[in-house]
Amino acid sequence: MQMGTPIELHGKPVSNGKFPLVCTPLVGRTREEIRSEVQLILVKGPDILEWRVDFFEGIADTAEVLSVAQSIKQAAAGIPLLFTRRSMAEGGERIALSEAAVVALYQAVCERGLVDLVDFEMNNDPAHIARVRAAAKASDIKLILSFHDFSLTPALENLKQRFVQAEQLGADIAKVAVTPRDLEDVLTLLSATLSASRQLKIPLISMSMGPYGSLTRLFGWVYGSALTFAVGASRSAPGQMPIEDINTVLGILQQSMTAK
Amino acid sequence: MQMGTPIELHGKPVSNGKFPLVCTPLVGRTREEIRSEVQLILVKGPDILEWRVDFFEGIADTAEVLSVAQSIKQAAAGIPLLFTRRSMAEGGERIALSEAAVVALYQAVCERGLVDLVDFEMNNDPAHIARVRAAAKASDIKLILSFHDFSLTPALENLKQRFVQAEQLGADIAKVAVTPRDLEDVLTLLSATLSASRQLKIPLISMSMGPYGSLTRLFGWVYGSALTFAVGASRSAPGQMPIEDINTVLGILQQSMTAK
Repeated sequence: MQMGTPIELHGKPVSNGKFPLVCTPLVGRTREEIRSEVQLILVKGPDILEWRVDFFEGIADTAEVLSVAQSIKQAAAGIPLLFTRRSMAEGGERIALSEAAVVALYQAVCERGLVDLVDFEMNNDPAHIARVRAAAKASDIKLILSFHDFSLTPALENLKQRFVQAEQLGADIAKVAVTPRDLEDVLTLLSATLSASRQLKIPLISMSMGPYGSLTRLFGWVYGSALTFAVGASRSAPGQMPIEDINTVLGILQQSMTAK
Repeated sequence: MQMGTPIELHGKPVSNGKFPLVCTPLVGRTREEIRSEVQLILVKGPDILEWRVDFFEGIADTAEVLSVAQSIKQAAAGIPLLFTRRSMAEGGERIALSEAAVVALYQAVCERGLVDLVDFEMNNDPAHIARVRAAAKASDIKLILSFHDFSLTPALENLKQRFVQAEQLGADIAKVAVTPRDLEDVLTLLSATLSASRQLKIPLISMSMGPYGSLTRLFGWVYGSALTFAVGASRSAPGQMPIEDINTVLGILQQSMTAK
C-alpha cells in the first residue's frame, strides 16, 4: 500500500512509526489554562503535543515562555512537543512581538532544548527561516516549514510546488494546509499530497480545512500525510475533530485498507 | 453543503431521506441460509436489503424464488428489498439460467410486487433492459441500471458517461462500481460522482471497490452517492465493511461536515 514517510525524532520514528501520528494543539492563554489542557489531553493519548504559543498571553516574556515550555515538557512525560507561533497572516493570533523577536524566541526555545519540533512558515523572511533552521539543527530539533491558506486551495501545480519549496528551504517536514471552496478542491489537495509524497524525501503533513476538509483529517494519511491534528481540549483551526473520533475512524480505515 | 439526490420509493424518500442509505446484501445459497442472514442483519438496522439471487441455488425454480422473496419481505417488516441478479461478467455467481430466463424471472418478481427495487446491468441486451424496465415501471418498482468493472477504473470522461448512459436508458437510479489500480483512481471515481450528481436528475450510487476503494464506501456520499453497501452477515463485493463500522464513521463524518 502507498504510504508516506514517517516522522522521526532523534533518529527514531515517533510512536514506533505509527502512521499517521495524531497531534493535539494547546491553545491556552495562561499558564494555568495550558496546564489544564495538558492534563485533559494526555489521557487521550496523542502522539505529539503542539504548543500554539501565539495564543499565550505571556509570549513577549521569553523567560516565561521557556518556563511554560519546560512545564509542558515535564508534564508530557515523553510525548514530543511541537512549538508553533502561527502568524496572523496564516491564521494565528495577534501578538505583541516583532518578527525579529519571534525568531529570537524560537532561537531561545531551541537552544534550551525544550521542544522536539518547531513549525515556522515558509512565507516568512528567508533570513529568518535560515536562522530558525540553524537554531533547530544545532539542537537536533525538527523544522516544519508550513504554508496555510484560509481562503482557498491553490491549483494543483501550485500546491505541489509548496511541498517542494519547503524541502528546498531546508525543512525536515513540509506542511500544507489550505481551504476548499468546493469538494473538487479536497480532491486536489489529496492528489497534490500523493504526488509530493512520491517526489519528496522528507515527511509531509497536509490537510484541507473547514467542514469539507474534515475528510482529509481522517484519510489524508492514505495519500501520504504523516500527521493529523485533532482536538484534545480546544481546536486551533477550522474542521479539527475530537481525538476520540479521529482514533475511531483511523482504526476502522486501517482495518479496511489492509483487508483482503 | 453539496448533497446528492435521495432515493425515493412509492413517492417517499427511503428512511426519511437519510443520506446515504446503508444497504446490506443477502448472499445465502439456501432458503435456510437466507433466513438466518435476514435475522442476523435486521437487528443491525439497514435501510435496504439486497437479495443477490445469483447466490441462491434455487434460482432456476421461479416459484421457489418468488416464495423466498416473499419470506424475505415478510421478515424484513417494511425494510425495502432490492432484487439483484449479478452477471458473472460483472462479478456475480455462475447460474444455470439463460439471459432470457433471467429477464422472465425479473418480470415474475416485479409482477408479484415482492420487491421494491431491481438492479439490472446496463451492459445487458437493450431489449432485455427495456423489458425489465417495463416490468418494474408497471409495478412501481425502481430500476437501478448498474455498471461494474472488477479490473480497473475507466478514465474520468468514460466514468461520467456511465452515469449518463444509465439515465438515458431509463434508470430510476444509476450505479457505478469500479476497481482502483492506484489511489488516483479513487479520486477519479469521486470526481466523476460529483460531476454526475450535478448533471443527472436521478439518484446515483457509486463506489470504488477493494481495499483502496473502501474509502469511498465511507465518504462517497459527500460526493453525491446516495447509498453505500455494508456487510451485515457476509460481503458480496471486495472492500465492503461491517455495517457497524460504516454507521460509526458516517455518524462522525456527518457531525464534522455540518460543524461550523
